[in-house]
Amino acid sequence: MKFVSYSNNSKEHLGLKEDKGILPIGKLLNDENIRIDKVIHNPEKISQIKQLLNNESISDSDYISEESVTFLPSVPEPKKIICIGKNYAEHAKETNDDIPEEPIVFSKFSDSAAAHMEDVPLPDKSDKVDYEAELAVIIGKRAEKVLEEEALQYVFGYSNANDLSARDLQFKSGQWLLGKTCPKFAPIGPYLITADEVGDPQNLNIRLFLNGEERQSSNTKHMIFTVKYLIHYLSQYMVLSPGDVILSGTPEGVILGHPDEKQSWLKPGDEVYVEIDKLGVLKNTLK
Amino acid sequence: MKFVSYSNNSKEHLGLKEDKGILPIGKLLNDENIRIDKVIHNPEKISQIKQLLNNESISDSDYISEESVTFLPSVPEPKKIICIGKNYAEHAKETNDDIPEEPIVFSKFSDSAAAHMEDVPLPDKSDKVDYEAELAVIIGKRAEKVLEEEALQYVFGYSNANDLSARDLQFKSGQWLLGKTCPKFAPIGPYLITADEVGDPQNLNIRLFLNGEERQSSNTKHMIFTVKYLIHYLSQYMVLSPGDVILSGTPEGVILGHPDEKQSWLKPGDEVYVEIDKLGVLKNTLK
Repeated sequence: MKFVSYSNNSKEHLGLKEDKGILPIGKLLNDENIRIDKVIHNPEKISQIKQLLNNESISDSDYISEESVTFLPSVPEPKKIICIGKNYAEHAKETNDDIPEEPIVFSKFSDSAAAHMEDVPLPDKSDKVDYEAELAVIIGKRAEKVLEEEALQYVFGYSNANDLSARDLQFKSGQWLLGKTCPKFAPIGPYLITADEVGDPQNLNIRLFLNGEERQSSNTKHMIFTVKYLIHYLSQYMVLSPGDVILSGTPEGVILGHPDEKQSWLKPGDEVYVEIDKLGVLKNTLK
Repeated sequence: MKFVSYSNNSKEHLGLKEDKGILPIGKLLNDENIRIDKVIHNPEKISQIKQLLNNESISDSDYISEESVTFLPSVPEPKKIICIGKNYAEHAKETNDDIPEEPIVFSKFSDSAAAHMEDVPLPDKSDKVDYEAELAVIIGKRAEKVLEEEALQYVFGYSNANDLSARDLQFKSGQWLLGKTCPKFAPIGPYLITADEVGDPQNLNIRLFLNGEERQSSNTKHMIFTVKYLIHYLSQYMVLSPGDVILSGTPEGVILGHPDEKQSWLKPGDEVYVEIDKLGVLKNTLK
């Protein structure tokens, strides 16, 4: 299933993305207050939704167009946003870093989450803003000290994400947070695709386009630490909760990796698209 | 006012700490669902509470004893926990670091908050757990790019905090998060004292006792970056929201600052008390 969180007439809604458009599921479920976090916390809702889809006579007029809604982040209020640094060897190399022996774990604050199609303000304290295409992993079940081979059972689903980074702020103090958590620096979406539809998370092409030009192109098979290893690893040190988001690192091709004289940082009007197989395209414009 | 968040018969409550004990205010306000976050978001509630205190005939039997309740973190669900590193010169010196020229900003996840009297588990992946007594600043109003001279207007109140730190995990990757956000590593409390009762946040004695022995003793006047500067500074890079908590850094006296041969890290049964003028004593036991 492809869940879409959106607002319409300033009310929040949950829908399913299908070929015909978005199917609002509040009416179907007779629960106008249904939200993605309720589904994540109550996975039995998914079979309920599946049943309705089969039983009910859904007509074309029940669908609304994507253009008519305002997207919300695919997880509108993530509990945590846990980020992994240097998780693709070619990216570590382009930034002149060693290939890490253990995951590098940092964070963005939850309130930096942004939506598909949402404008991202360039912070006035930075002039080195960079993009990072990443596979976002959304946790579905409480995970504490889980085995690597069982770790994927804890995944609710996946989204595209852009781990926007103000490089000058990121490297100010040694601690990256300041350059990672500027307002709207965590676009995530457009959809939250359930794990069963994605299958193996380690075989997805991941690409980023800046104003139509391909800037990043890799595959999640090149991750140094796989999704299941990351969940296992993180769960040794903290409790992962339903609704937590893991940004699993970016492949090579970021502006930081360009030779100094060619580093042309993001500027107002730039359009950044993140596209991962099966997850759709996440579009944001800098302003 | 000294707010206390606590649970009783597994229900959450809000009370006022007074000489006679804790005065539950749900009944007084005729709102059993009153919580500290509602008060923080609706400051007019404070004058309502003040009026009630003056008008109502409150009897001794309305008070309950501190011993009869289970404390919650003084901000049970902080929006963000923003931490400041090396904010006392003597602490920077004891850890052989330079005195920072700008605040070092890092974080704990909100779900690492712990309560007064709550046991803190020693993570099994660490054997170098340390304490850090800190003044916690709780934000009361949305703050974006605020002036330093106006910044204290954005403070709701203050609490004691212990920025527990697993030093081996903290220094694993360069990013401190992993060693800072272990379960229950952010005890905060016992009370949330409103800013008007505290007055100047830069003239408070701050002390930490380990099993009765004084280990840290300083005064908030020794902060390198004052509370008002920190709010001003942070608000240039992120939006501060009601309920956000800033841990403003620890003075000298941490275990990490001891000579190697004398570094005796926290162990099960250790009792750590953090005491800041006007804020009471925050007590936690390692287990």
